[in-house]
Amino acid sequence: MSLANLYLHRRQERRVQRGHPWVFSNEVAIDRSPLTAFEPGDCVNVLSHSGKPLGTAYVNPHSLICARMLSAEPDCVLDDAMLASRISEALVLRETLGWLPFCRLVYGESDRLPGLVVDAYGDVLVAQIGTAGMERMRDGIVAALLELCRPSAVVLRNDLASRKLEGLDTYIEVAHGHCPEAVSVRENETEFEIAPLAGQKTGWYYDQRCNRALVAERSHGRSVLDCFSYVGGFGIQAARAGAASVLCLDASQSALECAARNASLNGVEGTVELRRGDAFDALRALRDEGRRFDVVVVDPPAFIRRRKDRRSGLEAYRRLNRRAMQVLADDGLMLSASCSFHLSPEEHQAMIAGAADDVGRWIQILTRGHQAADHPVHPGLPESEYLKALLIRVVRG
Amino acid sequence: MSLANLYLHRRQERRVQRGHPWVFSNEVAIDRSPLTAFEPGDCVNVLSHSGKPLGTAYVNPHSLICARMLSAEPDCVLDDAMLASRISEALVLRETLGWLPFCRLVYGESDRLPGLVVDAYGDVLVAQIGTAGMERMRDGIVAALLELCRPSAVVLRNDLASRKLEGLDTYIEVAHGHCPEAVSVRENETEFEIAPLAGQKTGWYYDQRCNRALVAERSHGRSVLDCFSYVGGFGIQAARAGAASVLCLDASQSALECAARNASLNGVEGTVELRRGDAFDALRALRDEGRRFDVVVVDPPAFIRRRKDRRSGLEAYRRLNRRAMQVLADDGLMLSASCSFHLSPEEHQAMIAGAADDVGRWIQILTRGHQAADHPVHPGLPESEYLKALLIRVVRG
Repeated sequence: MSLANLYLHRRQERRVQRGHPWVFSNEVAIDRSPLTAFEPGDCVNVLSHSGKPLGTAYVNPHSLICARMLSAEPDCVLDDAMLASRISEALVLRETLGWLPFCRLVYGESDRLPGLVVDAYGDVLVAQIGTAGMERMRDGIVAALLELCRPSAVVLRNDLASRKLEGLDTYIEVAHGHCPEAVSVRENETEFEIAPLAGQKTGWYYDQRCNRALVAERSHGRSVLDCFSYVGGFGIQAARAGAASVLCLDASQSALECAARNASLNGVEGTVELRRGDAFDALRALRDEGRRFDVVVVDPPAFIRRRKDRRSGLEAYRRLNRRAMQVLADDGLMLSASCSFHLSPEEHQAMIAGAADDVGRWIQILTRGHQAADHPVHPGLPESEYLKALLIRVVRG
Repeated sequence: MSLANLYLHRRQERRVQRGHPWVFSNEVAIDRSPLTAFEPGDCVNVLSHSGKPLGTAYVNPHSLICARMLSAEPDCVLDDAMLASRISEALVLRETLGWLPFCRLVYGESDRLPGLVVDAYGDVLVAQIGTAGMERMRDGIVAALLELCRPSAVVLRNDLASRKLEGLDTYIEVAHGHCPEAVSVRENETEFEIAPLAGQKTGWYYDQRCNRALVAERSHGRSVLDCFSYVGGFGIQAARAGAASVLCLDASQSALECAARNASLNGVEGTVELRRGDAFDALRALRDEGRRFDVVVVDPPAFIRRRKDRRSGLEAYRRLNRRAMQVLADDGLMLSASCSFHLSPEEHQAMIAGAADDVGRWIQILTRGHQAADHPVHPGLPESEYLKALLIRVVRG
């Protein structure tokens, strides 16, 4: 049986033909293939204007991204068998990486599972379903994860705000087993306790794994400031690597309480100081107090969530980086990260160079950091690559 | 005493103002400041059209790049004291990295020493002087290196072809001490024997240090192919990390002989096979022989040396990567590198995605590799960043 056809407009098919896995609703030739004829989650064959098959997608007629490619082959139905085979293929990569059972297991389009993210915290799995097409498969997802990973619990953190764009409600549910309030994470030989039900996103950010290792490697005997520390990912790994002192700075009291527990868990509570506050204000206060650090980490939340926030976001990044440089000791190291997709690596670099200019410092870029390999990049989907970090040396001008 | 002035044309001063450290000869207002008035290596104050000071540079009136910035401050003369202080600052970074005495000590503009590169092989230092401005300082360079590093030998590998553009002759000279034919290098805990007087460049490519570690980390128990192996940098590190088998492929008999000695040095001569041949031909032959590898490294010389070679170079890269994918086992890993500055990271990625398309494979980008941190990037000089590598997973489509 052949799937229904979804035709694209002439001149709006190039992007998909080149491998981008999203179809936007204005690109569909609705006269030939009305979107209203489909239910959310239906699989369709995507065709160029001239009828050339471009592959299979699942659709959501109510969403701006109205179709997400599943395969370059036609007539591939997203069923339980395909789900299981794709999740299994995703697991092979994580086995190769050697990071199981503490890593991202599934990363959406990059694992050919658009709309699905799964993080593993030991035998607790936390999934996030972002689209109507995947929501329809939720029982199959849970079943495949049980079959392939034998977890003690599967949590659905379906509280992503973006679900509303897909016409989905938001909810958190333990779909299998029992999930404790706190679970353990091991990353780069450091233990963390995190909250999969109440924490940010799925509870932890595995994407910074390699950047945290990079900072830890350079922290021995040094004073370290971790801005936007959350539960201490950068700071506590630096402390474990022998930092002379670490200051974790965050606006959230509960994150800092968790950071305190994590410091104790790793026996570095004597090295790790905690400070609550807005990073911009706290950095100014630290500067005025004359505090200086050998290593500063700046890992803020996305300041540019939409393209229209670019101007104000860029200004915020620059101000933040400038202030961070002002509490950096002479000849210090700084890791400056951004998870804003709408800030390109070039703009990120220029922003940091600008901040250095503002405060009369001279910099060298030592290392470019990226999201870890359990967040693989889809070569046709620039949106799958969002994290950039620069490790720089900052010298008085 | 104030330095002579070098005025730039209106509208040709933006690049330098933004931090790019090169002035091209057509950008100089020769009516106000004739280049012919200067000797190669003279220091000048660079000024905008309106007379705004942009900093100090040294000049070469005979070169297309007629001035190279030394400082954003005016009246900074490049003398023995400045040389020593800048080399010393460069050494501080390498101490921080913990790679001494086996790393690049000085990387030109990125260390504010335009025209000077120094690599350390234990207590043998190999310097390359690329410009007339630095050539004039050669005695000071040797003296500073002796003072700061106490090496047993300093070699000047002044055989760069680009010296001709500066009006300099090419020569190789042992400027201090005695340099043996072969010296030892230690990188990522692996020993290599290299030829500082006769090898390529200064004898070794430290820029791939982290990418070699990345491949080694993924090589345990696997079959590895190292294309363009030179003296075995990638392959022998993979063998030491437990690769089941390694094939080093290179066109140079002397490089392969050196690779054989390096395999023995590390006790992996039983794992490392050597094959001499043109990579393009050899890859086709391996494919036809049915040989398949779990991990393939493709690290060719620059195929795009000048902008005008872009088209043919891109085609050569794509053909090479296609052939490499054809000898890759199902679900294999490939590290594909390019040291062509004129190939952007985006073009490099698109080229690899295109090669995968050509052979019906589907890829995920796991890690972006860059030149190691002892080759820091100058934020204002895109030309200081040339090496890119993608570690990809290649799956049957």
